Amino acid sequence: MRTAIAIDSRSATPLHRQIYDAWRGDILTGRFRRGERVPSTRELAAALKVARATVAQAYEQLLAEGYLHATRGSGTFVCRELPDELLQPKPVARASAKPASQVKLSRFGARLTEDFRYAPESPGSICFARWTPDLERFPLTIWRKLVLRALRQASRANLGYSREPQGIESLRVEIAAYVARSRAVRCTPEQVVVLSGSQQALDFCARLLTEPGDEVAFENPGYLGTRRIFEAHGLKLRPARIDNEGIAIRDLGRKSKLAYVTPSHQFPTGLAMSLPRRLELLSWARTHGAIVVEDDYDSEYRYSGPPLPALQGLADDVPVIYCGTFSKVMFPALRIGYVIVPEQLAAAFRRAKWINDRHTPTLEQLALAEFLGEGHLDRHVRRMRRLYGHRREVLVDALTRHFGGDAAVCGDAAGMSVMVRFAVADIAANATRKKVQIVSTAPYYLGKAPANEFLLGFSTLGDRAIREGIKRLAAVP
Amino acid sequence: MRTAIAIDSRSATPLHRQIYDAWRGDILTGRFRRGERVPSTRELAAALKVARATVAQAYEQLLAEGYLHATRGSGTFVCRELPDELLQPKPVARASAKPASQVKLSRFGARLTEDFRYAPESPGSICFARWTPDLERFPLTIWRKLVLRALRQASRANLGYSREPQGIESLRVEIAAYVARSRAVRCTPEQVVVLSGSQQALDFCARLLTEPGDEVAFENPGYLGTRRIFEAHGLKLRPARIDNEGIAIRDLGRKSKLAYVTPSHQFPTGLAMSLPRRLELLSWARTHGAIVVEDDYDSEYRYSGPPLPALQGLADDVPVIYCGTFSKVMFPALRIGYVIVPEQLAAAFRRAKWINDRHTPTLEQLALAEFLGEGHLDRHVRRMRRLYGHRREVLVDALTRHFGGDAAVCGDAAGMSVMVRFAVADIAANATRKKVQIVSTAPYYLGKAPANEFLLGFSTLGDRAIREGIKRLAAVP
Repeated sequence: MRTAIAIDSRSATPLHRQIYDAWRGDILTGRFRRGERVPSTRELAAALKVARATVAQAYEQLLAEGYLHATRGSGTFVCRELPDELLQPKPVARASAKPASQVKLSRFGARLTEDFRYAPESPGSICFARWTPDLERFPLTIWRKLVLRALRQASRANLGYSREPQGIESLRVEIAAYVARSRAVRCTPEQVVVLSGSQQALDFCARLLTEPGDEVAFENPGYLGTRRIFEAHGLKLRPARIDNEGIAIRDLGRKSKLAYVTPSHQFPTGLAMSLPRRLELLSWARTHGAIVVEDDYDSEYRYSGPPLPALQGLADDVPVIYCGTFSKVMFPALRIGYVIVPEQLAAAFRRAKWINDRHTPTLEQLALAEFLGEGHLDRHVRRMRRLYGHRREVLVDALTRHFGGDAAVCGDAAGMSVMVRFAVADIAANATRKKVQIVSTAPYYLGKAPANEFLLGFSTLGDRAIREGIKRLAAVP
Repeated sequence: MRTAIAIDSRSATPLHRQIYDAWRGDILTGRFRRGERVPSTRELAAALKVARATVAQAYEQLLAEGYLHATRGSGTFVCRELPDELLQPKPVARASAKPASQVKLSRFGARLTEDFRYAPESPGSICFARWTPDLERFPLTIWRKLVLRALRQASRANLGYSREPQGIESLRVEIAAYVARSRAVRCTPEQVVVLSGSQQALDFCARLLTEPGDEVAFENPGYLGTRRIFEAHGLKLRPARIDNEGIAIRDLGRKSKLAYVTPSHQFPTGLAMSLPRRLELLSWARTHGAIVVEDDYDSEYRYSGPPLPALQGLADDVPVIYCGTFSKVMFPALRIGYVIVPEQLAAAFRRAKWINDRHTPTLEQLALAEFLGEGHLDRHVRRMRRLYGHRREVLVDALTRHFGGDAAVCGDAAGMSVMVRFAVADIAANATRKKVQIVSTAPYYLGKAPANEFLLGFSTLGDRAIREGIKRLAAVP
């Protein structure tokens, strides 16, 4: 009768678990044969000098899992019904098996080819490759206070599943008021659906409003985050050119299910869509029964005059899905965004949220509602608008000084980046040599991209870095 | 020359915005005609007794948006290129239009028919309709401390977009260690993908591993959250019966792309899958090239012996997607769960997360990593296991006392709910009359459901409430 188990009374693993592990291992590896009798709890306890209850606990588990079976009066045995052939699959079975490495992904899964794609900032270089907020300016102390308050007031009601997958009411009320005052969006809190960032909004637009194979109109050049989710969904992207007034209506087509636009600040060109063009776009959507997806990702940052009113506010009889985010006005790691949808679509978006991931974390929603309600967001946006507006000026001045007519700045005084067309050819090579990180706009184009066009993010850089970066870029090698 | 604008210098709306709003409104409603000259900034400033710069700011915006155009020397005019017919769509255009209410949802969207479905607790009643954690026992003080610490250490790196859509490394390391020690799951941190709860894991399994129309094996009865997302995705659910050993292998079929199982604690029956059955399931998957999705939602709560090891740990050559969640061991509003996937699938899940919603909020991931690393989760689970184990005993004792042989308790001593088959017929009516909230298992069945079978959640109720509830349920009307 084998009772030798190396047990260690000082181990963090409880004794009963050590016994369980040892016996299970011996059964699985065949050191115990099928049908073989194992020591009784009394015998093993005596041999190991442990309490009988400890052994009993291990045996109970092994019995429950079907490793052992007990026969009244005659003892405990390794199960016969535990076929070796199942534990050690025969070569034949193995040969016909599909190893984990051979799992076939769905069409959606197979289309996912892109990972997190931001190049890291290399030390010593000046990085114009970011158009995210200057996070050091975020009022973290206030945010911390509000999160702490939400945690202090946490109760059963807001630690459990939220009854409002579309977002807690107080936050939806604040968002509706915020977009009304800052963006001239017209909506009730019932039309607001709080999501995990605007990327989820774009995913939901594709899932809820299109089928794989559908044609959709897409700005060219356009935002990669949208393009990737639309492509993964199997949509056919119909490129629509961007001219000085915005998206070219003649390029939208007759069959497009939806048109994706960034009318306040086209990405990446930086152009604002003119009012006549906005009306033409709505008219196109009306005529063809298409949906307009308005991505208003950084419209808060306009440096001349108030923000342009959203397209949504002009559209009474055209379905516009308005996508907003707190990633650009607060911080991206918060992962909270929202959609404003026509009343008739609110249920579908709410249900999609419930079935996709239930709801956005509640305590963060509570803190965010207060951040808006107490006016912190408006104040922060005002401050950042001044800061980024100044940085943009510094950048444009530096471009003018060092490049003169050889650098054409596109778009309006807005946003966190500037698209620049250079008339000098070796910008990219020079940037690498001089340790200046800039981003070519080529990936944003469907089809042929112009050469020597770059997107320069300025929002995270100080004045000196901006000036030095452009100076380096312009220096003859 | 019209200069009458009702401006209010005490309003929170800046003066330039009031001017802008008034003129824009007049243009849109036709009170200003196309081509009509508007007052100059000097004229209007004098009339309104405001600074000329204020009026200029409003005009600049109106010019930028295409409402006005200026002609050097002759003044500022309402744009002619702003056609009334676009602003006020003609009846013809309107008739052919598709109003927002008529938007056609995608097939996926049309299949979403279910909202948040938990009945509210009615006052004065005893609610056995919850199998969520007892949230008053959660160590909120510790959690608060850790969140605060994460917020204090917040830096540019963890306020921006995470470079790890699959979850921050420190959390993945902790999760890999946790599932190894508590669930005998074998994985590296590279196989862990942090998600917004296990619901997202189930959505990703459907999207990444199946096509609409595919057949999948589904436990019958089974978990509704999974069923709803699978149905919405267009999958054909093949019901597989649950017997005393677990899912019936003969019901899995030959064409199922995957089998969804809850082997540690079958929902809702409460049964554990026996070892022989587990091996048979893996053998079935191996033979048919199918994937096993193991939802291990509340396996931490077993009240006799240690938790059953996960199926994942037995499967070397079969792809098992292991889904775990912190909703049952911490609190649901946290919205953090995870999958452990075969190495070869890690990229697909990571990319799906990035394209669906970028990543799970970072600061919460940081706090959670410490909650695990400092042993708080293990301690809390141990405490809750004792508490819920005791509550289950109280419930089972009360059922025995009041119903005797008329209430058959199914499943193992585990989980947060108990499935009970009553031999008395009028349980539901009695429950309503006596203000006891219980949940019929009927919705969990595909096809015909047995009568008088209920799921009784006990995890949120004190001893007295449990005893009183069962007493009420048993009382003759």
